[in-house]
Amino acid sequence: MTPTLIPPAQLLDRLRWRYATKTFDAARKIPADTWSALEDSLALSASSFGLQPYRVLVINNPATRERLLPHAWNQRQVTDASHFLVFAARTRVTETDIDGFIHFIARTRGVTPESLADYRGMMTGMLLSDAFRPLVPHWTARQAYIALGNLLTSAALLSVDACPMEGFVPAEFDKVLGLAAQDLASVVCCALGYRDAEDSYALAPKVRLPKSELLRVL
Amino acid sequence: MTPTLIPPAQLLDRLRWRYATKTFDAARKIPADTWSALEDSLALSASSFGLQPYRVLVINNPATRERLLPHAWNQRQVTDASHFLVFAARTRVTETDIDGFIHFIARTRGVTPESLADYRGMMTGMLLSDAFRPLVPHWTARQAYIALGNLLTSAALLSVDACPMEGFVPAEFDKVLGLAAQDLASVVCCALGYRDAEDSYALAPKVRLPKSELLRVL
Repeated sequence: MTPTLIPPAQLLDRLRWRYATKTFDAARKIPADTWSALEDSLALSASSFGLQPYRVLVINNPATRERLLPHAWNQRQVTDASHFLVFAARTRVTETDIDGFIHFIARTRGVTPESLADYRGMMTGMLLSDAFRPLVPHWTARQAYIALGNLLTSAALLSVDACPMEGFVPAEFDKVLGLAAQDLASVVCCALGYRDAEDSYALAPKVRLPKSELLRVL
Repeated sequence: MTPTLIPPAQLLDRLRWRYATKTFDAARKIPADTWSALEDSLALSASSFGLQPYRVLVINNPATRERLLPHAWNQRQVTDASHFLVFAARTRVTETDIDGFIHFIARTRGVTPESLADYRGMMTGMLLSDAFRPLVPHWTARQAYIALGNLLTSAALLSVDACPMEGFVPAEFDKVLGLAAQDLASVVCCALGYRDAEDSYALAPKVRLPKSELLRVL
């Protein structure tokens, strides 16, 4: 049985160790059991309604990474990191999606879809409204960012380095990965692996607002 | 000295324990040292450029929570949780903001602002462009969602329950909290504390896409 919590000091030690890794050790791969845990942590991310309206593309093919590279300002994290992920958010949510999700909940929890009518109504009322439709891609992207935030913390706890990346051309990534036909759009990436011993950014003092400025107690 | 990582099984145990808590034990408060660690974890969240373009409002005043309650569909997490946070994202980013940030980096890292000219140019080129300006509130919101994702995982590791909440009327929250005058807009909330023993949602099986569907290996 695992202990029920970790000491606060250990959590903060890991979060302070984390930084946006610029240079990865291209020879070092994430071990299979560690990677599996990171996959599980992604799958356990929270999302609004539990809908998980995004997919996480794990780009293992070196040729595909090379094709993405010029559309990410040639940042070598794309090709050098052990793992390179593209978060692709749904560009629309349909009634069919919602019904599929309702049936999935019903099967998982052993209840009838009819018993979830109120929950279904909340979802359709929000997600299918004319007012909300143009905001759907922004909303699905936000859910993907929750998963990104969880991933960065989970990786740090497992001493895996990461570089979250917005510096790429989403439209070009979408073309290379054929995302539009799947109602998906790339919104953010994350390289994962192990920092190169020469990456000077690892030693740079963290730049963070004082808590008294970031947090406002009312 | 703290250990350098936690076992993957312990991380996953904590992430499986986490759920969107519907009923909090109103009598149970987060201890000061645990809360302080959660504040620190928020401050250590990653953000694009490191800009932290949001503020986290900690609503401790019971009267203020009561005023927010009707604008959150009377969900009792607002008033019953030990802590109630509102993430408020910047609605605009100005050249003055960027220069202030550049000087803050320079002071923190003991370099000259001039040495950061390229970094400054990257930020102004993106954030101040006419094309990007309408997207700024979406972009700042995404950064806040990274912090939310980190917070949810950090809280779970410390065995603190949480309920991320989008079910509120942002315009009404903004009025109650006087946010517009500060170029801020509420984007998401998070209640934190301890689950009530009677909260049946704690026992409901998790509904999650199989990894083979959420993740696509290319």
